[in-house]
Amino acid sequence: MKKVAIIGASGYSGEELVRLLFNHPSVELTAITSRQSAGQMVAQVFPRFASHPRSGALRFTEPDAQALSTQAGIVFLALPHGVAAEFAVPLLQAGCVVIDLSADFRLKNATTYKEFYGHDHPAPELLRESVYGLPEFHRADIRRARLIASPGCYPTSILVPVLPLLRAGLIKSTGIIADSLSGVSGAGRKADVGYLFCECNESVRPYGVPRHRHLSEIEEQLAVAAGGPVTIQFTPHLIPVNRGILTTLYLAPEQHFNTAEQASALGEKITACYAKAYANEPFVRLLEGTALPDTKNVTGTNVIEIAWRLDPRTGRLIVMSAVDNIVKGASGQAVQCMNIHCGFPETTGLL
Amino acid sequence: MKKVAIIGASGYSGEELVRLLFNHPSVELTAITSRQSAGQMVAQVFPRFASHPRSGALRFTEPDAQALSTQAGIVFLALPHGVAAEFAVPLLQAGCVVIDLSADFRLKNATTYKEFYGHDHPAPELLRESVYGLPEFHRADIRRARLIASPGCYPTSILVPVLPLLRAGLIKSTGIIADSLSGVSGAGRKADVGYLFCECNESVRPYGVPRHRHLSEIEEQLAVAAGGPVTIQFTPHLIPVNRGILTTLYLAPEQHFNTAEQASALGEKITACYAKAYANEPFVRLLEGTALPDTKNVTGTNVIEIAWRLDPRTGRLIVMSAVDNIVKGASGQAVQCMNIHCGFPETTGLL
Amino acid sequence: MKKVAIIGASGYSGEELVRLLFNHPSVELTAITSRQSAGQMVAQVFPRFASHPRSGALRFTEPDAQALSTQAGIVFLALPHGVAAEFAVPLLQAGCVVIDLSADFRLKNATTYKEFYGHDHPAPELLRESVYGLPEFHRADIRRARLIASPGCYPTSILVPVLPLLRAGLIKSTGIIADSLSGVSGAGRKADVGYLFCECNESVRPYGVPRHRHLSEIEEQLAVAAGGPVTIQFTPHLIPVNRGILTTLYLAPEQHFNTAEQASALGEKITACYAKAYANEPFVRLLEGTALPDTKNVTGTNVIEIAWRLDPRTGRLIVMSAVDNIVKGASGQAVQCMNIHCGFPETTGLL
Amino acid sequence: MKKVAIIGASGYSGEELVRLLFNHPSVELTAITSRQSAGQMVAQVFPRFASHPRSGALRFTEPDAQALSTQAGIVFLALPHGVAAEFAVPLLQAGCVVIDLSADFRLKNATTYKEFYGHDHPAPELLRESVYGLPEFHRADIRRARLIASPGCYPTSILVPVLPLLRAGLIKSTGIIADSLSGVSGAGRKADVGYLFCECNESVRPYGVPRHRHLSEIEEQLAVAAGGPVTIQFTPHLIPVNRGILTTLYLAPEQHFNTAEQASALGEKITACYAKAYANEPFVRLLEGTALPDTKNVTGTNVIEIAWRLDPRTGRLIVMSAVDNIVKGASGQAVQCMNIHCGFPETTGLL
Repeated sequence: MKKVAIIGASGYSGEELVRLLFNHPSVELTAITSRQSAGQMVAQVFPRFASHPRSGALRFTEPDAQALSTQAGIVFLALPHGVAAEFAVPLLQAGCVVIDLSADFRLKNATTYKEFYGHDHPAPELLRESVYGLPEFHRADIRRARLIASPGCYPTSILVPVLPLLRAGLIKSTGIIADSLSGVSGAGRKADVGYLFCECNESVRPYGVPRHRHLSEIEEQLAVAAGGPVTIQFTPHLIPVNRGILTTLYLAPEQHFNTAEQASALGEKITACYAKAYANEPFVRLLEGTALPDTKNVTGTNVIEIAWRLDPRTGRLIVMSAVDNIVKGASGQAVQCMNIHCGFPETTGLL
Repeated sequence: MKKVAIIGASGYSGEELVRLLFNHPSVELTAITSRQSAGQMVAQVFPRFASHPRSGALRFTEPDAQALSTQAGIVFLALPHGVAAEFAVPLLQAGCVVIDLSADFRLKNATTYKEFYGHDHPAPELLRESVYGLPEFHRADIRRARLIASPGCYPTSILVPVLPLLRAGLIKSTGIIADSLSGVSGAGRKADVGYLFCECNESVRPYGVPRHRHLSEIEEQLAVAAGGPVTIQFTPHLIPVNRGILTTLYLAPEQHFNTAEQASALGEKITACYAKAYANEPFVRLLEGTALPDTKNVTGTNVIEIAWRLDPRTGRLIVMSAVDNIVKGASGQAVQCMNIHCGFPETTGLL
Repeated sequence: MKKVAIIGASGYSGEELVRLLFNHPSVELTAITSRQSAGQMVAQVFPRFASHPRSGALRFTEPDAQALSTQAGIVFLALPHGVAAEFAVPLLQAGCVVIDLSADFRLKNATTYKEFYGHDHPAPELLRESVYGLPEFHRADIRRARLIASPGCYPTSILVPVLPLLRAGLIKSTGIIADSLSGVSGAGRKADVGYLFCECNESVRPYGVPRHRHLSEIEEQLAVAAGGPVTIQFTPHLIPVNRGILTTLYLAPEQHFNTAEQASALGEKITACYAKAYANEPFVRLLEGTALPDTKNVTGTNVIEIAWRLDPRTGRLIVMSAVDNIVKGASGQAVQCMNIHCGFPETTGLL
Repeated sequence: MKKVAIIGASGYSGEELVRLLFNHPSVELTAITSRQSAGQMVAQVFPRFASHPRSGALRFTEPDAQALSTQAGIVFLALPHGVAAEFAVPLLQAGCVVIDLSADFRLKNATTYKEFYGHDHPAPELLRESVYGLPEFHRADIRRARLIASPGCYPTSILVPVLPLLRAGLIKSTGIIADSLSGVSGAGRKADVGYLFCECNESVRPYGVPRHRHLSEIEEQLAVAAGGPVTIQFTPHLIPVNRGILTTLYLAPEQHFNTAEQASALGEKITACYAKAYANEPFVRLLEGTALPDTKNVTGTNVIEIAWRLDPRTGRLIVMSAVDNIVKGASGQAVQCMNIHCGFPETTGLL
């Protein structure tokens, strides 16, 4: 049994990490921390875990990197950006493996970090070493990494559908548009009038237009696949569900398809491209026939659903994806990375 | 007091028409029909009207064009497409003014109708005469029309923000993308497993990709403004709210704006264009400062909210709009047309 | 045009007061105050009012009783208990009529106030004078009052159905149980983790068991009708809707009804009792036939729906009511009181 | 691996059974039937199972008792009442163990069945043999039964909190009131206008007042505990959540508690009573301190939460419970029964 800990376990991602690690047969969750919940039992903060056989004596403590490094070999950071790095540095020095759910180590470029996050990177020397924890694309590096940066929820919903097409040269790297709809848990468990029930229920609204922070990691990852800089359009919207992200992508195929034959040929290439990339991926579900993604089919799971349509009227390729922002978009993917890193079967505790 | 009637009053648009006409000081609602509710009092079908002073003796009847033409001078049709035309013909012959909320008379081209609605147009001879009931653009024609085709909900949310820009030549007529999110009332009050509470709640999903029926009227109207055929990309999504449509539009300005000066100059043109088009429009709200549209600010009202952002990173213009699909997107706009046609102040009963 | 003002207009009740007073033909809203929103235009804080012809130059100011007393003859207080009294005193001294939506002047007994609200009453000398603003029972006093205490939302949903039965001696004053379900707006527009969207959505929970503050005013009003002290059981629950209270009352008829004849006779008495009390009340809707209350039939209106059933199996009378907690349960009822006080037709601006 | 099958697997209970049996380590789900979905793969009807390793070749078939009896030793019936019995008879004859989620075998008395369900019992000869599948009270019988009648959702939420108190003589068997709030999945996956999203969202309503069918099994079970007939008051309400039942019970303690000492003594007895009944029950969670039940803490789990308060003002005991109507209130409890019957650890596949 690997010993694991979570720093910042009282938010939505932290809660989901607790759930997943409680149900994981090969790890023991030895410590959870939270400044605001320190001293409380896990079941006091999250009553739904009270009946779980593992919740027993687990109590929130104050976060203390030194102490944690003696209690766990793998530490998950479910902290705000900026704060995460402060814990990552001493934990790595103490020999822990760190899986960070914040944005602190997702970018290779400290300048981009400052541009999007508004302050100097707190530990730029670690950026070269950190691995972007998108298992479908960085499995080998995740296996070897000491520091894994778990991707953002929006980036996951965008990169998984786009990267194979871009790598295969099937779409242009210009003109990409990602229109995303997110549940309210994406805003975190913080007291803010804008996220009160009555402000979100019976409401739909865009936000962060036109320059959301997640653009930085999306474009950095797309650039690797495209072999050069990529600039995309990204519009997030807040919708009244607890969980789930639905992303609609507007893409330009490299090939024209004016005739039914051309469309059919291009369709076969797209099918083949996705099949090659994902046929054996346990958490990528390629929809068939008339099926389209629906967040209710993925909430609570680590699965991303993908469907696509060629539009002969406009010459565009429309790709749609659905993920649970807290599972495949955060904690589930982090556990998937842990499984890979530890050599556990990748789906352990996630099916 | 003008006498008015509603055919097909037991659905969501019909219910909203009843509400608006009950509160209208210059009309008397003399008849409401519904095959399934015939014989019932309005307050039995819609309990919320029971306390309204006008609900008194109003009873649903079987739809009968001949009888209705003696009871009302203006008849609203809140019927499915195909069925609406069957009533429009005899009502017009009997001298009534018809305001049709279905798609039957929105298109000028019967071939397009057949292409998108799957059957021959039931009364093609009326297409030339019918007026597209978007008051902000067809006010004069609405005043003179015998047959007004009230626009669809999605088209309203798209045309109002796009038409001024297109007319002014500020954006290209190519590459337009409209990504729309609609509340469930848009699907109507029909028993269908897909629209059950448990199938829609905690769910977000695209549908009708890539070729929704509303494309036909959107593109026909855009073509007039552009002076030539327009093909757009349109993706509707279903979200768990009762009412509201949020549309995000991706547009390409004719002018490049690489520098801050260019962006500023273009921004001023857009501001001026919208101001010119809508400064005096009572139901178009141009948002200022950091405000973005939110459906909760328009539900229950006949207002459309519009905001826009230039994205210097991508060179695109992002325009966002919010409407209540049942008010400005259907029944409110139909009443606005009635006000214009009858010479009432346009906001009568709608503020 | 009567001049009116609102102190504390940035919460949910304040917002609804703004809406109702904007639509009221006989009053002019001259001032709105809010500590946190001072300096902002009404349309910046509540975008949905931006298109209203009256929203024009109305700006939130810092609350200042002296200044307000020169701007308005009637002042609504939408403030927390304790704070409301601080403003009521100087406003009354300056000659204003005060309609207070807080709990400060609902009780006659300052000891009860302290017992339930935890601090000394800030202005006990005004308790004798203040009138409990439940129009169906205190209309004459409301007409003459300088200080009107608008009832709580739960109390409204309980008192309107129970008082006539108690006054008529049809039910016992002992053993009354009120089980109430409230939308989240009842908790106010305050940043509190417990009322975040994700904490309330897909959640149902009791709270304040067994001794909610509203018990004090409910029991005081029931005691008047019963001619002696009344102690009831009251259990509030939080449910995921923006607005609406559904109350289910368990009552013991004075008369037994073992036979069908007895049940029928008792039923006729209840029908007659409610008819006598409410047949001419514009905002009390007595449901007939198989209809039962549903909050969606009253939200946005000043109506309370009531239905009842005798249960021959248990000998109980079940009465159910539905109100909009923010309208009939707060701001609408306050405006109804204002109409009465000013001699306007009682339904003005409320239908 | 035990072979199991589900008849009527396309509804909400059926779907949840599929989920639970897929995740159960000791059974193999060999057949699922559905008249309307026959011929479709399980993943076509329930896309969320597509990524589950066990969903592979499982296809819905037409229900055929004879065929099923060769495919499975244990058959779950997730069918409407009346229909369930038609399948139970031949399955039992063929030697299968039947776990029926309908109401057909929950009552011992065929007359009561007819009274509440409106038709003659289809197989009254089986009523003596069938076991009421509430594990906390009928564990030994469940182990030996061929025919297990899984309890209703409301009954579970009422019986688990009430039975121990009644058995211990701590409360009177008269005057019991159960006020219950249920999510919409309780109405099943059937196309009915009343359960459309827009009819349930932003709505709360009572129904089935005063005589819901579940009364029959609740009272029959209470009677056993009380040693004589029990008549209770039960009011169900529909609230806009997918899942969850919150029940508030109003009970009369046998003992008065006028003083703090008496209340404290009675409280200790209640604590001891529940501890004795449930301290070792894995799926009953007795809340402590200020905690009250919340459906969001139990949805997706087989747990029932219980809390209680003595009200010295009224002399009543208020008990509150929360369950997931589809898990502990239906499919989870059925699997719990299967575990008991098969000799698996009782929590297998349910934690």
